[in-house]
Amino acid sequence: MSEQRFEVPGFQASGIASGIKEEGRKDLALLYSEVPAKAAGVFTTNVFKAAPVLLDMERIKSGSARAVIVNSGNANAATGEEGYQDAVKMARFCAGALSIDEAQVLVASTGVIGRRLPIDKVAGSVSRLVKGLSPAGIPEAAEAIMTTDRYPKIQYREGAVGGSDVCICGIAKGAGMIEPGMATLLSFILTDADIEDAALKRALREAVDRSFNAISVDGCMSTNDTVLLLANGLAGNRRIRTSTRDYAVFSDMLADAMTELAKMIVRDGEGATKLIEIVVEGAKTAGDAKTVAYQIARSNLVKTAFYGGDPNWGRIISAAGAAGVTLDPNAVELTFDGVPLFRQGQGIAGRLQELAEIMKRDHIRVVVTLGQGTKGFRVYSSDLTLDYVRINAHYTT
Amino acid sequence: MSEQRFEVPGFQASGIASGIKEEGRKDLALLYSEVPAKAAGVFTTNVFKAAPVLLDMERIKSGSARAVIVNSGNANAATGEEGYQDAVKMARFCAGALSIDEAQVLVASTGVIGRRLPIDKVAGSVSRLVKGLSPAGIPEAAEAIMTTDRYPKIQYREGAVGGSDVCICGIAKGAGMIEPGMATLLSFILTDADIEDAALKRALREAVDRSFNAISVDGCMSTNDTVLLLANGLAGNRRIRTSTRDYAVFSDMLADAMTELAKMIVRDGEGATKLIEIVVEGAKTAGDAKTVAYQIARSNLVKTAFYGGDPNWGRIISAAGAAGVTLDPNAVELTFDGVPLFRQGQGIAGRLQELAEIMKRDHIRVVVTLGQGTKGFRVYSSDLTLDYVRINAHYTT
Repeated sequence: MSEQRFEVPGFQASGIASGIKEEGRKDLALLYSEVPAKAAGVFTTNVFKAAPVLLDMERIKSGSARAVIVNSGNANAATGEEGYQDAVKMARFCAGALSIDEAQVLVASTGVIGRRLPIDKVAGSVSRLVKGLSPAGIPEAAEAIMTTDRYPKIQYREGAVGGSDVCICGIAKGAGMIEPGMATLLSFILTDADIEDAALKRALREAVDRSFNAISVDGCMSTNDTVLLLANGLAGNRRIRTSTRDYAVFSDMLADAMTELAKMIVRDGEGATKLIEIVVEGAKTAGDAKTVAYQIARSNLVKTAFYGGDPNWGRIISAAGAAGVTLDPNAVELTFDGVPLFRQGQGIAGRLQELAEIMKRDHIRVVVTLGQGTKGFRVYSSDLTLDYVRINAHYTT
Repeated sequence: MSEQRFEVPGFQASGIASGIKEEGRKDLALLYSEVPAKAAGVFTTNVFKAAPVLLDMERIKSGSARAVIVNSGNANAATGEEGYQDAVKMARFCAGALSIDEAQVLVASTGVIGRRLPIDKVAGSVSRLVKGLSPAGIPEAAEAIMTTDRYPKIQYREGAVGGSDVCICGIAKGAGMIEPGMATLLSFILTDADIEDAALKRALREAVDRSFNAISVDGCMSTNDTVLLLANGLAGNRRIRTSTRDYAVFSDMLADAMTELAKMIVRDGEGATKLIEIVVEGAKTAGDAKTVAYQIARSNLVKTAFYGGDPNWGRIISAAGAAGVTLDPNAVELTFDGVPLFRQGQGIAGRLQELAEIMKRDHIRVVVTLGQGTKGFRVYSSDLTLDYVRINAHYTT
């Protein structure tokens, strides 16, 4: 895959080291649209929203944005009014260097909670950040938003929509949490699609529900979670409207790219060694399916069993039964990668050797059929490992 | 504390090794009332209820019981109709040896899920179990219901109620889960109090809510959780009725004993090194307080931080904010053992040395004040340790 695949017409990006992180690691990223772009965002529902989240939630109401500036190494969360003003300044410095309206600049931060953002470092680096802008700079930006991620996360899709080739390029950083509040899922998606406001918002919302809202690393929601989608319309396609074929094609491309980013995040979860795909089918409602799937995905007993390679179906059944959804125990069925384990209220014997093989795989598909209806939900989860505990226990302030 | 303290007039108990567990460890317990006794029970709400739970839920409707027979080493869960018949037989053998009505015998099991109970071992041991009955046998029963518990859990209380000395003795086994489905909280409480049916049920329900329903080891609810309370009335007290002073005294004694059993369970949680008391105050409703308290208690990031001795208040605030309860971030306050950490939307600096000392303690009290009202809730939790993962990952079937 060549670097060219990560370019979107009309967008430039850069990533540099500003000194917020130690050891000269990249910690400041910029995404810039050469022309006015539409923008939509989805933000954490945590009550303790970080300053940049509060700022973006205001600014995104305009439905447009020209730039997104992102720092890693400091979350600018639990920093009060001073922190909010720091976020405003970060956008203002960026707008000044780009000669654009500061209201068109969005901000995101990720890193330690509760410490003032070293805003002077941002001020001193913004002109270098802008000078570094390049159509080929998206991978550098992906690197600069990393905290405890082991590798940058980029996905690219292109396809014919409304008579033109449309492309989508998304970057993300993980939900893994090493240090206090190194706790954030950030994702930024750029597209040259021409799309009406309502369709943009809806496509993002739906794609988030199918991707980032369908993963569980450790069930913790950060103060900084932010997903932004910018669309500059340069593809020249017939404008995408909701409830059209074009919309379906575009939103599938978007959800596909974001689902892959979400899976990359789970695989790169702290200490994770396995991707566990939990599929709940045959539910009365999608809500029921989601509730059961997350109860299983979040169970420490289930997660440690997968880590240990133990085909411990009793823990999955027990978690499903504790989800608060009314179930008929005799109608529930369970399979691991297609091998049946539980049916009609009882375990199925004699498959231990097959199961031992399955448990060694690095992607295992768990299907729980509730036998009540036709709705389903899928969650991607990771295992709970010794490294997760080591990483998260031994930070010292 | 002499063994005599663990006797309740009119009750006898025993505990023996029947061969269900390996290595000759005790695995069969019997609690027996010499006279008819009132009985109340609280059971798991898991959809996949174990066979003995299903049996007890039927039998407890009579409001009376003479005996409880309990095995450890096998949960008799996910065993279908055969498993249910095994539970019926277990009670029948016991009733035969005691020459009492089999409908007056309750059953509980704890251990591996999904394997047939070796009912022949129970059949072959019941007469020895009955022969071993003694007023001083409660500690032996407490030992026989252990699975991965490191020590037996017994609590004794006595006090003046309705003109007589009334005593309460309770035993419990832990919610720690080493093997698949070694996952059960069992507790049995004996009292010589004379108490009317409605008061007995209500006192048990309230005490469970204040004790076993206010702890979190790993957020997993088993298929076998069972709490039974037997009252034989031999104390000769004025019969306890709800909404009386006698009721208040008795139910406080009961809740006190059960809360101490609950704390013993948390301290003995798998791999646990610390008791973390999470108190949420100033909530609009008790439900809000409970939701926030459990969100914190269940957070793996919070639990690992305590393990590592890291005064990681950002994780607690972040968990509180993700509970789904509407909060004013500026009204929330947080203290560790009385030391303030967070107030008016910001961390409080300059207390790191005090905090480092606090984090070394083996019981830490975290108080979160929401600033919305007067309701509160307290949860006892444990830390998440390397040993928890080791213990739970490396079982092999």
